[in-house]
Amino acid sequence: MKIVCDKSLLTSGIGISLRAIPSKSTMQILSFIAIVAEDNKVRLVSNNLELGIETELDANVIEGGKICVEARMFSEIVKKLPNNEITMEVNDDTNSDSGIKNRTMLIKSGKVKFEIAVMSTDEFVFLPNFSGDENIEISHYDLKNIINQTEFSISDNENTKVMTGELFEIKGNNLRMVALDGNRIAIRNHNLVKEYKDVRAIIPGKTLRELSKIISDDIEKRVIIYFSDNHVTFKFDNTTVLSRLIDGNYYNVDKMLTDTHNLKVTVNKAEMLETVDRSLLLRRESDKKPIIFDIYDDHINFSMKTSVGSMNEDIDVTKTGDDLKIGFNPKFMIDALKNIDSEEIDFYFINPKSPCFIRDESKSYIYLILPINF
Amino acid sequence: MKIVCDKSLLTSGIGISLRAIPSKSTMQILSFIAIVAEDNKVRLVSNNLELGIETELDANVIEGGKICVEARMFSEIVKKLPNNEITMEVNDDTNSDSGIKNRTMLIKSGKVKFEIAVMSTDEFVFLPNFSGDENIEISHYDLKNIINQTEFSISDNENTKVMTGELFEIKGNNLRMVALDGNRIAIRNHNLVKEYKDVRAIIPGKTLRELSKIISDDIEKRVIIYFSDNHVTFKFDNTTVLSRLIDGNYYNVDKMLTDTHNLKVTVNKAEMLETVDRSLLLRRESDKKPIIFDIYDDHINFSMKTSVGSMNEDIDVTKTGDDLKIGFNPKFMIDALKNIDSEEIDFYFINPKSPCFIRDESKSYIYLILPINF
Repeated sequence: MKIVCDKSLLTSGIGISLRAIPSKSTMQILSFIAIVAEDNKVRLVSNNLELGIETELDANVIEGGKICVEARMFSEIVKKLPNNEITMEVNDDTNSDSGIKNRTMLIKSGKVKFEIAVMSTDEFVFLPNFSGDENIEISHYDLKNIINQTEFSISDNENTKVMTGELFEIKGNNLRMVALDGNRIAIRNHNLVKEYKDVRAIIPGKTLRELSKIISDDIEKRVIIYFSDNHVTFKFDNTTVLSRLIDGNYYNVDKMLTDTHNLKVTVNKAEMLETVDRSLLLRRESDKKPIIFDIYDDHINFSMKTSVGSMNEDIDVTKTGDDLKIGFNPKFMIDALKNIDSEEIDFYFINPKSPCFIRDESKSYIYLILPINF
Repeated sequence: MKIVCDKSLLTSGIGISLRAIPSKSTMQILSFIAIVAEDNKVRLVSNNLELGIETELDANVIEGGKICVEARMFSEIVKKLPNNEITMEVNDDTNSDSGIKNRTMLIKSGKVKFEIAVMSTDEFVFLPNFSGDENIEISHYDLKNIINQTEFSISDNENTKVMTGELFEIKGNNLRMVALDGNRIAIRNHNLVKEYKDVRAIIPGKTLRELSKIISDDIEKRVIIYFSDNHVTFKFDNTTVLSRLIDGNYYNVDKMLTDTHNLKVTVNKAEMLETVDRSLLLRRESDKKPIIFDIYDDHINFSMKTSVGSMNEDIDVTKTGDDLKIGFNPKFMIDALKNIDSEEIDFYFINPKSPCFIRDESKSYIYLILPINF
């Protein structure tokens, strides 16, 4: 194998590949990237068996071939090379005594030469080639937003596997993504450009988080998504992301939602976010005290009392309905507020024991948060 | 106690005080700041018994008093207050049943109210008042530089206590600071504005590191330094930093230095720094391989070979003297190079077993690095 390629293209390709490299692994091969060179293209492939990524870049392929390199070291070396032109060449030195092949790759850039150990791709698991019967289209921008605005509600409790993923549901032209963790639910609804066949699949949270880091925030560029039996594939730019789906039945989310309420409060998001954020200062891991919302007249009085001190703060709101005193985990409030992109936010309450709903008129977002007894 | 003060002044005062707050401690009181309010001044005092800091700010003192607060929580709360005007007021609530005093401090800013537990200053160790017979003057800028350009050579091996500090030595109008760790020595010489009596003291590395973070890089502003039997005091702006000195005899550094050399090499600093830095990519904790300098004609060929690969790189230099092949710990080279503020640097070598010296003509800096056998 002998390739001449651009440092900038290679660096960004490696950056994408690293998203499927586990931070530690018992299987050595999982920390390797496969480099496949043919037809003036270089493909970089990484695969942790849950999530696989393949990304392609233009290169001058002088001699085709394929090889595996340790991903992080390769990444570090390429980043620190001095020139934009990089030459990579694989050499097979056979030790004349032992007959053992000692395979290395020479990486050259300007006067700099690195030689690193490489492995054959024999043990490497390349991505299977799936094709779905329907290609769902969504912009980079929308997909990235929907993921970022829901993923914080994904549970990290591996005992309830379905909770560690998000529901990806298509009905007609509506895409709904749902994440829940037993204390809260995050829902985003999004209008797709056309109608598709129904989809109901659970995509692992890890896949979505890595995906959202790779896709751009370009509203013009498209991601193509298709589902096969146990997998979902995302195709965009020169990159394919393939992920296993989570087996199992997702919760019946509609049963958990209601429009009934006894109190509606409209608050200034920035003001409320600052207040709730300050309450965290007093919170200690040992006593997970709630922040109390005392809602009366046109005010919310926020208060918290913990082993180290107390806080108390008033903000003006627009209120329709009954007075109410209710307590919440401030972290859950902050997660939801941070991810809503509007100045004023509507809260809907039923009573101190029932969940509160944060949503807009059109229900493009719905956040449900369970209260805490106090 | 009741104070009204400026958030910005208070925040910067707390920032300074935190430098003497240990990250963890078995003695609770060490994680507290003492607040002393009198005569329209507020003094903040922190003391970890090695290093003590006292800093003063202007305030409207409505009622004088003194109190201790948990430093980090106090810092976090103040940072997140909404308005610049902060009111702090200590309340003594005596529980009518138990008769136990429950002391709290109310912190108010705009509509925000925090109430936190406080402690009396009974257990707090305030700083003793030392005065030295001679006040040494140096600019913030110079002191900060001298510390930063030597402190990386301080040893962290607590078994050889004197190595965990720096030699602070004054002879006439020359200040010399020396740090060494058994593999290398860092020396800076600096001309003071006037002559002082001889000083030879060992200042703890931790003190110097914290001090360099507090002082500015203003060349016009002065730090006043004076020594008493076991302590050194630094006074600047509204702040006093007091530190214990390290007991013991420092090494005879002059015995370790020599001007004799068989080879002088002048290199471009930036170029060499990049090269040596790249060699770190191949270095693994398990095999601490040296970087080899092969110095011949007008080149240095740098190479390193480890379990994961090898690198090889040439740079052009100006050379006077014998050819030489010598190996070094690349980290030590990088530390020295990074801290020299000139484009071209002179290296002096004797033979592959003797230390190399990096110094300028006037010896304002001398870095000695021991070679590694290879």
